[in-house]
Amino acid sequence: MNSATLELVNAPTNSKSVNRGYLEGQLREAGIHAEDPRIASLNKYLESMEPGEPITMDAIENGAAESRALLGKAISNRLVVPRFGAFRSMIEELFHKSKKAEGGAVASYIPQLKRVNPNLFGVSICTIDGQQLSLGDSNAEFCMQSACKAALYCSVLELLGQGLVHRHMGWEPSGRSFNELALNQRNQPHNPMINAGAIMSCALLMPESPMSERFDHLLKMLAGFSGNRRPGFNNSVYLSERETADRNHALAYYMKEVGAFPEGTDLHATLDLYFSACSIETTTRQMAMHAATLANAGVCPLTGSRVIKENTAKNCLSMMYSCGMYDYSGEFAFRVGLPAKSGVSGVVMAVVPNLMGIAVYSPRIDAMGNSVRGVEFLKSLVDTYNMHNYDSLTRTHKIDPRQH
Amino acid sequence: MNSATLELVNAPTNSKSVNRGYLEGQLREAGIHAEDPRIASLNKYLESMEPGEPITMDAIENGAAESRALLGKAISNRLVVPRFGAFRSMIEELFHKSKKAEGGAVASYIPQLKRVNPNLFGVSICTIDGQQLSLGDSNAEFCMQSACKAALYCSVLELLGQGLVHRHMGWEPSGRSFNELALNQRNQPHNPMINAGAIMSCALLMPESPMSERFDHLLKMLAGFSGNRRPGFNNSVYLSERETADRNHALAYYMKEVGAFPEGTDLHATLDLYFSACSIETTTRQMAMHAATLANAGVCPLTGSRVIKENTAKNCLSMMYSCGMYDYSGEFAFRVGLPAKSGVSGVVMAVVPNLMGIAVYSPRIDAMGNSVRGVEFLKSLVDTYNMHNYDSLTRTHKIDPRQH
Amino acid sequence: MNSATLELVNAPTNSKSVNRGYLEGQLREAGIHAEDPRIASLNKYLESMEPGEPITMDAIENGAAESRALLGKAISNRLVVPRFGAFRSMIEELFHKSKKAEGGAVASYIPQLKRVNPNLFGVSICTIDGQQLSLGDSNAEFCMQSACKAALYCSVLELLGQGLVHRHMGWEPSGRSFNELALNQRNQPHNPMINAGAIMSCALLMPESPMSERFDHLLKMLAGFSGNRRPGFNNSVYLSERETADRNHALAYYMKEVGAFPEGTDLHATLDLYFSACSIETTTRQMAMHAATLANAGVCPLTGSRVIKENTAKNCLSMMYSCGMYDYSGEFAFRVGLPAKSGVSGVVMAVVPNLMGIAVYSPRIDAMGNSVRGVEFLKSLVDTYNMHNYDSLTRTHKIDPRQH
Amino acid sequence: MNSATLELVNAPTNSKSVNRGYLEGQLREAGIHAEDPRIASLNKYLESMEPGEPITMDAIENGAAESRALLGKAISNRLVVPRFGAFRSMIEELFHKSKKAEGGAVASYIPQLKRVNPNLFGVSICTIDGQQLSLGDSNAEFCMQSACKAALYCSVLELLGQGLVHRHMGWEPSGRSFNELALNQRNQPHNPMINAGAIMSCALLMPESPMSERFDHLLKMLAGFSGNRRPGFNNSVYLSERETADRNHALAYYMKEVGAFPEGTDLHATLDLYFSACSIETTTRQMAMHAATLANAGVCPLTGSRVIKENTAKNCLSMMYSCGMYDYSGEFAFRVGLPAKSGVSGVVMAVVPNLMGIAVYSPRIDAMGNSVRGVEFLKSLVDTYNMHNYDSLTRTHKIDPRQH
Repeated sequence: MNSATLELVNAPTNSKSVNRGYLEGQLREAGIHAEDPRIASLNKYLESMEPGEPITMDAIENGAAESRALLGKAISNRLVVPRFGAFRSMIEELFHKSKKAEGGAVASYIPQLKRVNPNLFGVSICTIDGQQLSLGDSNAEFCMQSACKAALYCSVLELLGQGLVHRHMGWEPSGRSFNELALNQRNQPHNPMINAGAIMSCALLMPESPMSERFDHLLKMLAGFSGNRRPGFNNSVYLSERETADRNHALAYYMKEVGAFPEGTDLHATLDLYFSACSIETTTRQMAMHAATLANAGVCPLTGSRVIKENTAKNCLSMMYSCGMYDYSGEFAFRVGLPAKSGVSGVVMAVVPNLMGIAVYSPRIDAMGNSVRGVEFLKSLVDTYNMHNYDSLTRTHKIDPRQH
Repeated sequence: MNSATLELVNAPTNSKSVNRGYLEGQLREAGIHAEDPRIASLNKYLESMEPGEPITMDAIENGAAESRALLGKAISNRLVVPRFGAFRSMIEELFHKSKKAEGGAVASYIPQLKRVNPNLFGVSICTIDGQQLSLGDSNAEFCMQSACKAALYCSVLELLGQGLVHRHMGWEPSGRSFNELALNQRNQPHNPMINAGAIMSCALLMPESPMSERFDHLLKMLAGFSGNRRPGFNNSVYLSERETADRNHALAYYMKEVGAFPEGTDLHATLDLYFSACSIETTTRQMAMHAATLANAGVCPLTGSRVIKENTAKNCLSMMYSCGMYDYSGEFAFRVGLPAKSGVSGVVMAVVPNLMGIAVYSPRIDAMGNSVRGVEFLKSLVDTYNMHNYDSLTRTHKIDPRQH
Repeated sequence: MNSATLELVNAPTNSKSVNRGYLEGQLREAGIHAEDPRIASLNKYLESMEPGEPITMDAIENGAAESRALLGKAISNRLVVPRFGAFRSMIEELFHKSKKAEGGAVASYIPQLKRVNPNLFGVSICTIDGQQLSLGDSNAEFCMQSACKAALYCSVLELLGQGLVHRHMGWEPSGRSFNELALNQRNQPHNPMINAGAIMSCALLMPESPMSERFDHLLKMLAGFSGNRRPGFNNSVYLSERETADRNHALAYYMKEVGAFPEGTDLHATLDLYFSACSIETTTRQMAMHAATLANAGVCPLTGSRVIKENTAKNCLSMMYSCGMYDYSGEFAFRVGLPAKSGVSGVVMAVVPNLMGIAVYSPRIDAMGNSVRGVEFLKSLVDTYNMHNYDSLTRTHKIDPRQH
Repeated sequence: MNSATLELVNAPTNSKSVNRGYLEGQLREAGIHAEDPRIASLNKYLESMEPGEPITMDAIENGAAESRALLGKAISNRLVVPRFGAFRSMIEELFHKSKKAEGGAVASYIPQLKRVNPNLFGVSICTIDGQQLSLGDSNAEFCMQSACKAALYCSVLELLGQGLVHRHMGWEPSGRSFNELALNQRNQPHNPMINAGAIMSCALLMPESPMSERFDHLLKMLAGFSGNRRPGFNNSVYLSERETADRNHALAYYMKEVGAFPEGTDLHATLDLYFSACSIETTTRQMAMHAATLANAGVCPLTGSRVIKENTAKNCLSMMYSCGMYDYSGEFAFRVGLPAKSGVSGVVMAVVPNLMGIAVYSPRIDAMGNSVRGVEFLKSLVDTYNMHNYDSLTRTHKIDPRQH
């Protein structure tokens, strides 16, 4: 074993081989999940070994070349959050602290949301190096609701470009409720993160194609964001949404009337696509990857594939920063200072650019529609770590998770 | 001359002394202005020299100790914009390009503004290391108008703390015109950067003290921002503003009526202070220092004195980012991505956190009240340099002015 | 022939019989139309006569008893407008004067309206004694459009009573455009004469019955208003209305969302009924009878049948008075002082309580949606006759058409 | 004594003279108040008589000629409400019934209003023939508040004519609260009966004259309305109003800002006049005469003097009908159907054109600002008498007070 490999495995003894348990322990400690596609070849190799057989570096070089680089970084603490174990401990502490926030109430405008267990609470984090961390009900499935608006906006930016998209929507918070029956002074939705804007995104998303392809296009993007894991769909929620969507119908007809939509827009197909998007099912684990892909400028950390252009990610974060938390967006930008998007199902996805994505799920929402524990958790996070947009300005006592 | 001093002066020849002209040239090249207070002792020393007398390092160490560190950094290109000459050339290019923007019209609601020469155009930049650069009419004096709102907000944050201040104003863009007769759902001004919010800042600024002291307090802060240079006052504008301020009176009475002000607020004194603040006179040179102090987390780069707390600077930038450009704030945050504040006199002050402050003055404003050339110049600036809030995300071709 | 019959026929000579031509001339002069159902038996009798055969009173008493009373009143000038010939001459004068008003433009939001000949101009009047008068294009067919709102409101008042109906709509002008996306502070349509209110009337009109019966119910009422003449239907307009009715859809969904409708309302059926009602075709002749029935407290002057209750007529007139002329209602009530209802097809129906109904049709409408010539004609009418709601107050030079 | 005089006094016996007590009893019974100026000469004559001296017609003809006509009408039941005794009994009944309405609360925005005894209740009626009737606290003094708006509007109509006045205000209810910070689409106050409109009336009322004369002009008109009895002034209320008038200041500045006022309007003088007008003190007795003068087309029934033109009265009634009862105007017009104006002091003045004026005072007001008992009393009044604007239409069981 030469010095390079020595460095690589950072093994406790100067032996030519390392123990399998030790290797796996190091990976877990660094936040590399057992099912991370980047260590698939390593896993395969390890499984092919006889019990007790020592792991040689040569074997890794030969048999699991794809995993080699990640393994090296993980073991030598060169991932973006180098001291991931300490980070995890702190996050656990914040998780338990935030759990105490019991205010708010489950959204009740459709029975499917109302029935949800109000005590669910899950937190997942994924760094731009694919380090993952999940606490609580991180596998509980919930509908994206408004959290789908980020992906909808990304889709149309990719398809049409910013110039064309923003002929049909603005950049500004509305200063009003998220579903207010109002457009901006140019008769456009105020921004892509409110209902009117997301309905517009749906109108712009491949209007010439069959519904199935339009929806599929969105699903593919969401899968790309989340390490190629295809999200589910809650048809009961979809049907309920469609039945009770008077405000959205009112909005859409109003937009149509003032000529907000492109020529030839099919209103019903547009709304159908919107309700479908809201009914896509996901988990905090997947949403954290979604957020991490945005933090990583459009490349999914787990697959290394570019899902959206850098500029698309940048523009989406701009909009999430100023308009992503409904009526609370202004105060959230001020206090938390992170691009985020929430949904009435109780999800909040937040992005720390160039560092990580975070997803919280807890169904009790406040009067503005944001998850009470979600907001609480993110507040305590930026109180602890220097993640606020303007924290670079202040030389505080806050921890920098990037530091060794 | 030892290696340390060699490094210091980076002299062309290995002599024990350097030429005075060479030294001054190096300082100018690095952006250190002849009147920079930090080189006052050096200037004094240099002036005390006989013609032709060589400059020795020892003499500098003895006679101009305060200037020593700056001199070292400047000569060895260790200031925050190391290649300041190249930077200056590029800015000159952008200046000339932006000069071509001839749209907009001079504000005309009071005769004093209307009479201004519409062709004036000045740009000043000041880095957090006090490197300065001024082009065009950078000494033309103009009234701060709405650009005073940042300092007003800082004053009350310093005096009362964020909690108390935000009992009386919100954090959110209003989604409407800057002087709209509307408050947010809690009957507060939407944010400190619109008229209603700045009037509220005035109400909160030492309400128990005599008017003269309240105004003086603001002037002192502005002087502190600008290297201790006290700004002027345009009394004609003040009188005109007061006479034509129907909308602001309407706003203030409305705010009073719904109980927005603290108990005991004197409406007339409050408005007087507001009109006074708007009538303070300044130059782009001074406004660039103001912006640089914000970029430098509250410490004036030219004096090294802390003017406001780090947190105050951070909060002010948060508000400028989302609400500083009137109705255009949303689009400006999206496209330019810098905290900024404009005034109808034609000034725009922008902040690149941890890097520099920028001030542009050109009296022709667009329909939203922002200087046409000001916006144009800032757009071309972020197209050239990676200064947008989310440029860190994108690995673009943009220039990083921090790089050697 | 005794003195009573003498008086009856008011014959020029003291003969026992009168000439047929003379009799018919007297009836026409008094405003009794040849097709008035009340003289059907007389017409029959007259047609059964030999040429030249003299008319005896006995024969009339026997053969045309139903027509006897009207004949008496007409010949002895005891109808409500006794000097109908003079009245007709004056109306002709006003008609020609108003014809000069050439402002406005034909409604163009659907092609079917746009195509109409803009020069059409018809005026019809019908008194509470069934005296009729028609000028110009009084047989031109046009769609009722908003003029159907009066009958819709009457229908639901009859079916449900005022208490129930006004649980779902207000009594107040909206102070805004007729199709404004706004409800009053109780989340109701402001009144039954604007779109939102008429849509609500449709929702309340026999919601349990099949569409065909609901529409039929309305048609029957309209026929009742107009001497049992069933109105037509313009299916092209209906289809166009339905296709372009974005604002009305927006309104309806908004109303649904805030719970304005009764439980179980079928939105699509409601809107269908509304568009159907707007597409009913009529003439000024028929609309004048409609208005006359309202002026006559609910009894159609031509058939003597009660169509609606007195109170229903009263309530409908209250609403027409304050809200019937779109945005112009306030000024119209002030200047003209008559209950009226207009439609964008160019119809205006006005009511002089206890005196007469008036209908004007001219397709060029002003910016507020009222027929330019219609408003002009009614203004000149009240300038000439003491018909303004508060004319009773002023002892003016105006003519009283009731006077002998 | 000839038959004419016999008829005149309608004496029980065919004697040449009548008893004084009988005569006075007849006058009181007919509603002629002892202090009615029209019987001043009669009173004088009667007082000059010896006790027991019989009254001869000749003496009346000679000594009290001015009172002769009224006396004749009164005694022979030819006044507009001929059976005044029966009318009075019925009104007493309605008064006691309405007294039971105990809802509402005394206005509390200024201490002077708050301190008023909430149980006060007065009703006064005055017919167009000057027949008077007063019940309860009809001499209690209260401030006119918004009830001054009718007289303000009349003043400017008289001074400037309808055309000029309505260049600065509209004719339409606002569809919003009475003090809403909103103007109509032409940037005018919606109508003269809301705050903005009354402030405009003040601006238009002799702007060139000294304040004292402007106020005096209004006082004189009010005195003219009320039988030449000069109303009082409550200076405490005036001072309080002025101090707490934030909303009105806001309104006025807003109106100034959008150019609603005529060139050169002095805002402070305008508001001062408005607050002064609101602070004028009156009684129901006087307000009933005010209303009666309007009912009598501008001629005060008690003095026979014309105070305003017929057209002014007509226009004022038009505005009171549609806009006089704040937010309740629409429903009030529908249900009660009388022109009326209320004030937050608890007064409501209502007009039955060509018949009578009514004033009710009871300080407890409802959420819309109208006296609870005032509205209650007027509702029960029109349920009993055929006074609703459209009651002429319905041949109901309601009593006609004009009938013998």
